[in-house]
Amino acid sequence: MLHRARTDPNFKLEDLPGSGGRMDIFCRFIVSSLLTSHGIRRDTVVYGVLLGPPNPPVAIKVLGDTVRYLNPDERSTGALIRNALFKMKRLSYNADTWMRSSPGVMFKRAGLKDILEELTNENFNIYYLKEDGEDIRTANVSLPAAFVISDSVDLTNDEEELVLGYSSGVLSLGPLSLYSEHCVVIIHNELDRRYSHFLKE
Amino acid sequence: MLHRARTDPNFKLEDLPGSGGRMDIFCRFIVSSLLTSHGIRRDTVVYGVLLGPPNPPVAIKVLGDTVRYLNPDERSTGALIRNALFKMKRLSYNADTWMRSSPGVMFKRAGLKDILEELTNENFNIYYLKEDGEDIRTANVSLPAAFVISDSVDLTNDEEELVLGYSSGVLSLGPLSLYSEHCVVIIHNELDRRYSHFLKE
Repeated sequence: MLHRARTDPNFKLEDLPGSGGRMDIFCRFIVSSLLTSHGIRRDTVVYGVLLGPPNPPVAIKVLGDTVRYLNPDERSTGALIRNALFKMKRLSYNADTWMRSSPGVMFKRAGLKDILEELTNENFNIYYLKEDGEDIRTANVSLPAAFVISDSVDLTNDEEELVLGYSSGVLSLGPLSLYSEHCVVIIHNELDRRYSHFLKE
Repeated sequence: MLHRARTDPNFKLEDLPGSGGRMDIFCRFIVSSLLTSHGIRRDTVVYGVLLGPPNPPVAIKVLGDTVRYLNPDERSTGALIRNALFKMKRLSYNADTWMRSSPGVMFKRAGLKDILEELTNENFNIYYLKEDGEDIRTANVSLPAAFVISDSVDLTNDEEELVLGYSSGVLSLGPLSLYSEHCVVIIHNELDRRYSHFLKE
């Protein structure tokens, strides 16, 4: 959930936090989710719901098994997202079906509820990350698993209620509240420890 | 250890990976080490040893308890580092004593051995991060602890031998090899779980 992220391409790669509405968070989140030191997590998909001006919501999906041109720095990742928003604007795209922007990067007109529906239809177990949840180290996490994480702003009450309606559990990662791009590192580490022999790297 | 990071300010904030010699890694590492969602880790200090052209080594230190102007994005962190390198160049600074660049950001002419000596003199227990080390979840980690992490390039054999001469243990974080800025998230999470009631946030 990116509550303020810009939903058109009118932001500067030199100023992702300001002009992009904290688009820098989404950039780091994509990298933390998909890249390891020596490879890419082909079994992972990132969904971003962008809710900033001028035309929310926009959903962006980045697929580990097909994405190209993904580098660990913020700026180049910001360019991938901006390219998707450019294409969406050029096509005046308003459909709620995924359209390809570049290899492994897709967009559509969709909000949180649509994405939760899509994940549920694909039989994902949805987990919501919150400070007072069950400790991820001891919790039962059933695969395939999807994790709902907010950006620097907490989910609104309505969003939280919506997520809880779909979720299989509420998980906590530790005693401190962390950036979303750091939360995903801890989630991956826990799942790597449990399931890494299944991974195709 | 930043094997290729530029040791003068002649790099572009728009191209930290290329012109900065993967300075983007150091930027993300500083943020992962020092910032949480709602605060700063006042009990943490980051040391970077920069070994790129034109004039290595340069050591940079960022102190959680005094740093200012630190934001979560790469570019603004890159500016803090570049300012330190500007000042070092302007002063033709070659001493091995810390000089302040901005609040909480220091520099000096020093390499890996100097920093290991300094940490040892300050009674730090030094741990080396490596894939085949002891699992951090079960290892004994004595405070105060310092962790030696390489950038995208492994330590050279000489560097590794040097570190092992000072280290209290070799630790592993999990089954996959991760970016250094993600390693520090997992280290913090483990220490937060053990010691967070001591933290002043």
